[in-house]
Amino acid sequence: MIKRIHHVGVVVKNLDEALDLYVNNLGFKASKIMIADKGEKFRTVMVSQGEVTLELIEPMDEKGGIQNFLETRGEGIHHISLEVDDIRAELNTLGARGIKFLFKEPEQVEGTLVTFVHPKSTRGVLMELLQE
Amino acid sequence: MIKRIHHVGVVVKNLDEALDLYVNNLGFKASKIMIADKGEKFRTVMVSQGEVTLELIEPMDEKGGIQNFLETRGEGIHHISLEVDDIRAELNTLGARGIKFLFKEPEQVEGTLVTFVHPKSTRGVLMELLQE
Repeated sequence: MIKRIHHVGVVVKNLDEALDLYVNNLGFKASKIMIADKGEKFRTVMVSQGEVTLELIEPMDEKGGIQNFLETRGEGIHHISLEVDDIRAELNTLGARGIKFLFKEPEQVEGTLVTFVHPKSTRGVLMELLQE
Repeated sequence: MIKRIHHVGVVVKNLDEALDLYVNNLGFKASKIMIADKGEKFRTVMVSQGEVTLELIEPMDEKGGIQNFLETRGEGIHHISLEVDDIRAELNTLGARGIKFLFKEPEQVEGTLVTFVHPKSTRGVLMELLQE
């Protein structure tokens, strides 16, 4: 069962410029900038306002999927992250209906468990499933 | 002040096929299919699960922005709709900080007031502001 939108991921060319825009012009509050280096290296920061959280993502690898997204689609919305109660139950239920996943075994990221539904299974929407 | 994500808009080639996927495979519940014909004509349906609502959108005009999105970026996430308390206050506050809008005067849509932040003001993110 999907509960809520945990965050929406946005790919940007320059994280510092994007952060300035989201905080100083659009009124969001920023958390700490992090560097992720599991598979693909990228810089990332969460910005929040009310119940809305966006994850700004700047690729650091020249050949990864995030850089590829930036080159082929340009800056913009990259994925939606959906919070679920039980990620393994979702993998089983959705898998049995033919939905494909990028990781069959959820990854541990910052105290959460995550996987991605394959965009071919969602008509082009990159959908992260996340369990707190 | 932005309160929450009202919905995420997803452009699809074929609304009936997408609806089948979201309802029968991904477990969403659908509302009624509507045809919008203000400016650009498109078919649309809201699908929900938990607190998550997605708006599936199929273009019906050969020359509109939605068809153009489909041709240049392919099926996928098109916009995020952010619920605000007072849309005119947001237009004033954000406008004073240099943020541009697609409509300076909010449009009435199904009992709500909406406008869009210009993607140039959000680094490529098409952001709808919506007041219930």
